[in-house]
Amino acid sequence: MNKIKPRTLSGFTELLPVQQVYFNDMAQKIREAFSLYGFTPLDTPLMDAAEIILAKGGGETEQQTYTLKKGDTDLAIRFDLTTPLAKYVALNYSRLTFPFRRFEIGKAYRGERPQRGRFREFYQADIDIIGDGGLDILNDAEIPSALYRCFKSLGLERFEIRINNRKTLSGLYEILGISDKSTAVMRLVDKLDKIGVEKLAASLKDDLELSEMQVSKLIEFVTYKGDPFDILGKYQGQNGTFDMGADELLAVKQHLTGFGVPETNFKIDLSIARGLDYYTGTVYETCLLDHPEVGSICSGGRYDNLAGYYTDKNLPGVGISIGLSRLFYILQEQNMLNEAILSSPADVLVIPMTDDRSAAVALATTMREAGLRTQIYSEDKKFKVKVSYADKLKIPYVVFLGEDEIAQEKITVKDMDSGEQVTASPAVLIANIAEKVKSLRTEKPIKG
Amino acid sequence: MNKIKPRTLSGFTELLPVQQVYFNDMAQKIREAFSLYGFTPLDTPLMDAAEIILAKGGGETEQQTYTLKKGDTDLAIRFDLTTPLAKYVALNYSRLTFPFRRFEIGKAYRGERPQRGRFREFYQADIDIIGDGGLDILNDAEIPSALYRCFKSLGLERFEIRINNRKTLSGLYEILGISDKSTAVMRLVDKLDKIGVEKLAASLKDDLELSEMQVSKLIEFVTYKGDPFDILGKYQGQNGTFDMGADELLAVKQHLTGFGVPETNFKIDLSIARGLDYYTGTVYETCLLDHPEVGSICSGGRYDNLAGYYTDKNLPGVGISIGLSRLFYILQEQNMLNEAILSSPADVLVIPMTDDRSAAVALATTMREAGLRTQIYSEDKKFKVKVSYADKLKIPYVVFLGEDEIAQEKITVKDMDSGEQVTASPAVLIANIAEKVKSLRTEKPIKG
Repeated sequence: MNKIKPRTLSGFTELLPVQQVYFNDMAQKIREAFSLYGFTPLDTPLMDAAEIILAKGGGETEQQTYTLKKGDTDLAIRFDLTTPLAKYVALNYSRLTFPFRRFEIGKAYRGERPQRGRFREFYQADIDIIGDGGLDILNDAEIPSALYRCFKSLGLERFEIRINNRKTLSGLYEILGISDKSTAVMRLVDKLDKIGVEKLAASLKDDLELSEMQVSKLIEFVTYKGDPFDILGKYQGQNGTFDMGADELLAVKQHLTGFGVPETNFKIDLSIARGLDYYTGTVYETCLLDHPEVGSICSGGRYDNLAGYYTDKNLPGVGISIGLSRLFYILQEQNMLNEAILSSPADVLVIPMTDDRSAAVALATTMREAGLRTQIYSEDKKFKVKVSYADKLKIPYVVFLGEDEIAQEKITVKDMDSGEQVTASPAVLIANIAEKVKSLRTEKPIKG
Repeated sequence: MNKIKPRTLSGFTELLPVQQVYFNDMAQKIREAFSLYGFTPLDTPLMDAAEIILAKGGGETEQQTYTLKKGDTDLAIRFDLTTPLAKYVALNYSRLTFPFRRFEIGKAYRGERPQRGRFREFYQADIDIIGDGGLDILNDAEIPSALYRCFKSLGLERFEIRINNRKTLSGLYEILGISDKSTAVMRLVDKLDKIGVEKLAASLKDDLELSEMQVSKLIEFVTYKGDPFDILGKYQGQNGTFDMGADELLAVKQHLTGFGVPETNFKIDLSIARGLDYYTGTVYETCLLDHPEVGSICSGGRYDNLAGYYTDKNLPGVGISIGLSRLFYILQEQNMLNEAILSSPADVLVIPMTDDRSAAVALATTMREAGLRTQIYSEDKKFKVKVSYADKLKIPYVVFLGEDEIAQEKITVKDMDSGEQVTASPAVLIANIAEKVKSLRTEKPIKG
């Protein structure tokens, strides 16, 4: 038979078992953190009618979307988790209770050219809070607070959630008389990190023909190094939108502190604009302080209307999305995964040393009932191969069960890390292993 | 703007929040049970090159497979979790340690006509153990033992794992001189449950032209009501394949008992044939004893070679697949979900009764740190609306935080179930709630 060459599509994720353990551990901790904030889990379909997925239409996203036909139906595969959420909320409006808080950790697909840290199949972890007719500003603080707890539970320490409010930017443009160029200005300001102050100033002046006064006020605002509320104060009272944005920023800041988020992990950053059309208030970006070059690993913000394509109901929301596959790629690349976590598929390997394996079967059953992840090595191989199986998989404990042990109702346990070997009653050793495994399980997937 | 009608594709799964809680709880318990048996989690891509997904080719499956083109590449979406596993093992052969035990809980897609309990997008939960060159029979007992523990952890009691061995069937056909018709005979025998003994006998005689002696021996064998090892013993010593099958069945039975699986939950059933080409030894089916009409909810068996399309290496395996979406559908339909589980998105709703919400923010933070899933109701609504929010979402505890409470450093907790209301110090009440919530969390998703 002609053989097919086994391969995985470029840009698609397929992790080796140990990597998968880290990834799943992260996903589980994210689920737990989001659950603590009262977000309910959703799991929306990966496919929808093309009309739904492409409701927004046009541009790069549409080109990158995977589409297909089945019978007469035009289908498309989701490129994010917001599009399915919008449909879900519109479709189930009467059955949901608002404000509606959901999280979803799921795959999305974009047929873009795969490159370093960019994937065609990738996980996102999203939280959103959707209001019905209105949504209090406290929610804008809950989102980064949930994110903070989430990252901390992963073991991440050196990150910073940067927060701004689009209303202050829009208001400032009105005050400076450059509202007609606001989209172009925001796009440039968003690049500040990449191009630096001088290039930004030059572009604002030359390309957008702003006056020197306008440029200098804008630059002063977005690069202000002192307390941002000082410079916000300077403009307050001149423009309603600006004032509302400044008030919202202050409220978010105060609540975030109330939620116990330390100032080392968040910052009001007046330069962040984030997306051009969608966000209307608070915006978020998150960077790894030791790796600014990777950009934002988690972004989001406040939007006026989630489901305008489907309904006239006013459904404002606020949310954030972790690029989980991208984050995982960065953590691996930057050697930030914690080797100390228990990445083996089992806590214990039972090696029967007699032909009759019934004692091993009984012991494994007892161990599993005690919550220990247990394998029995049952293949007919040399002793060395059996022990090396545990070694390769980094299974921390091996139990030998020979005639002597069975006769004496004892077991022999080898600690694969220290090499130490003890023979004693099963009850004592099982309790012993369970305790040690429990402490291994407290390790976080990311090195701090 | 013209509105789009929000809709979900027919046959695609989109659960309401409460349903999703049950489904996720089940998935989590399945993960935990499989982990106890040392299965490592995998998460393979949903798409692959069409050549890979359709390696087996032909038949109904190929017609039902979703295919698409991106650029010059022919892609297909997986229709099960075995096809991606075969590719994974072939691709990563040198990086895996054998026997390789993996579980995967993931979505698969089949564009078949949606009907009651059949889905186009559905979850499967698979476990497989893959050997390199060989695989001990003990693994054939580990699989149903893991499944037993899995179902028990879900709360399912009235199920039966039915086990047979294809070798006894093949051997019997050789003994009876009907090997040339074995495929057709197996197909008919597989229908025994549906068509009954008389129709089976008639078909065997009339359609397959078996002699009366052949029919009566076959019928006697597959419908034998006594200890199956009695009738197996009657034929033993006449055919090597038969004898091997009978020995394997006995070993599986003995080990299953050793693993603590009671006879109420498994049965050696000589009539099961299961799939026509793929399985070569042990085969499994699982039925709900009170709902035989829904057929097998979990099936699998032993196969000789997982990855023959890719490699000449001999990779025998044994595995089982739970049709999770289908099982969930049946559980809902049969009213078998346990209403007593905590299906709310939060354990506590904090309702601030003052304009300043900082006390509520601080309290919610303390509660979250104590592991309580907490929401703050922050919208400016009438008191009744706030309480009804908790009521609709079945949040078990509501905390009122008014001026008096804040001044006295107390909180008022309302138990939404009993209606009882207590005012006391936060520390005492938080511990109290945490204890009660912990006991609510021990409920299993399925009613016994």
